[in-house]
Amino acid sequence: LGPPAFTTERIWEQTPVGVVMGLAWTSMGGSTLYVEASVVDEGEGKGSITTTGSLGDVMKESALIAFACARDCLRRRDPESDFFQTSRVHIHVPAGATPKDGPSAGCTMITALLSLALGRGALPDLAMTGEVTLTGRILPVGGIKEKVIAARRSGVKKIILPKDNLRDVDELAVEVKEGLEVIFVETIDQVLDVAFPKNE
Amino acid sequence: LGPPAFTTERIWEQTPVGVVMGLAWTSMGGSTLYVEASVVDEGEGKGSITTTGSLGDVMKESALIAFACARDCLRRRDPESDFFQTSRVHIHVPAGATPKDGPSAGCTMITALLSLALGRGALPDLAMTGEVTLTGRILPVGGIKEKVIAARRSGVKKIILPKDNLRDVDELAVEVKEGLEVIFVETIDQVLDVAFPKNE
Amino acid sequence: LGPPAFTTERIWEQTPVGVVMGLAWTSMGGSTLYVEASVVDEGEGKGSITTTGSLGDVMKESALIAFACARDCLRRRDPESDFFQTSRVHIHVPAGATPKDGPSAGCTMITALLSLALGRGALPDLAMTGEVTLTGRILPVGGIKEKVIAARRSGVKKIILPKDNLRDVDELAVEVKEGLEVIFVETIDQVLDVAFPKNE
Repeated sequence: LGPPAFTTERIWEQTPVGVVMGLAWTSMGGSTLYVEASVVDEGEGKGSITTTGSLGDVMKESALIAFACARDCLRRRDPESDFFQTSRVHIHVPAGATPKDGPSAGCTMITALLSLALGRGALPDLAMTGEVTLTGRILPVGGIKEKVIAARRSGVKKIILPKDNLRDVDELAVEVKEGLEVIFVETIDQVLDVAFPKNE
Repeated sequence: LGPPAFTTERIWEQTPVGVVMGLAWTSMGGSTLYVEASVVDEGEGKGSITTTGSLGDVMKESALIAFACARDCLRRRDPESDFFQTSRVHIHVPAGATPKDGPSAGCTMITALLSLALGRGALPDLAMTGEVTLTGRILPVGGIKEKVIAARRSGVKKIILPKDNLRDVDELAVEVKEGLEVIFVETIDQVLDVAFPKNE
Repeated sequence: LGPPAFTTERIWEQTPVGVVMGLAWTSMGGSTLYVEASVVDEGEGKGSITTTGSLGDVMKESALIAFACARDCLRRRDPESDFFQTSRVHIHVPAGATPKDGPSAGCTMITALLSLALGRGALPDLAMTGEVTLTGRILPVGGIKEKVIAARRSGVKKIILPKDNLRDVDELAVEVKEGLEVIFVETIDQVLDVAFPKNE
């Protein structure tokens, strides 16, 4: 995997509102990645989403899905809010020059959008990966081993993974996942329950 | 066909409102697929449709046709509703990174849109395939054998097929279609009568 | 020409409002084709047209010409109607996955649009082919022999052809055109007089 690039991998000690840590992988190995969400215009006109970060077509579609799904999630958590109906939001995935693609940042995008809408930071030292369908089901993703290694290397304590990736984690050597709490989920609401615990 | 990938094929035990099971096939064999429809904005401005799921040009056109046709269907079932005139809807076909194309999910898309407009889930354990014309005629599709095998493998009990595919089903060995109720249709209204039975 | 595919060629016994039968040909032979027109939005805002059916650039332009020309035709037939000024209409040419191109469906598209605007089905067992200019002149088209054969095979009784194709029909063997009434036209108004007879 080459030497770990700590300086770029962990940008924040604690992620602010609107920022959530995800996990990515390529043939070169895994890495953490951040999804940043920000409000461009609030309370005027229709909701919409802009994306940046050299995202490929699948990842751009993933952001559209995240936007629609986040709206449903917010409706269940804060029925009075019309945040996504009236706000223009922007999602960026640093570093800007690194091409990225794939659907596995779906749950990270939704969590970042909810963080923004709720005005609340996500649980510290948490990372996540998982494709999300339009109605909020979590689908399995690739590169579990590389992502787990990257999470530990970046000092993550808890990771959220799709339930359908259970076998991939079971097959990992104990040393690889040591000290890491893994939470398996089937729905985006389960992701949000972890990221925004009720009794905090 | 290789080992069945149950975990990704059957995402829901029972599909929620806006989600309908379709059938797809490639040179690699058949599979079930889901069409998810969701409301992005309701009751404000003109109706429109967004699609995601790495859809090819024919399938994107199929969604436009489905949107126009669904409006006519709703007019016949609920003449007072202006749902499709005033709502921005979103159709997604998971998994996001799998390229898909072709017109055969037309009837599945229309059924998902009607489910959304009526606020009512489709009949459980139902799958369907069929191209739909703009005025609601059902045209035959390819891969009937592969689709029937995939439906049975996923525990589907009832499938809707185009009437012009009758011969393809007749030619199948009895073992292939055993235990599966096949309903042949000529119009989209016949599809909707099955998906949303009146006496339920 | 291979075996005739009756089941897909004749979709309707009698075409409903907005649907008109045309004639197409390729190097593989002739076939009937349907143009379907449907209203997406009525009575609000500007008129516009959407097309689907894997249409090539020339055929997409042909639909734009048809939309403008249909407006003039309607003005002559029903001066009070503002249907095309205020409606968003959709033209589809099944089957969705079959690429189509060329200008020869122009008169079929205009007839389908007029059927929609007048709320009246076209004459039964009628098919037509002909390019239309923006001001309504009918230009000759190719594949007359193949189209005549396809029309007879599909049980068509009357076909409308451009007057400039008179020689092509004269050259056909009597058996080919037997039992088929051929009407030659120079203007789109002559087409519409046949499709929507006054004394019916």
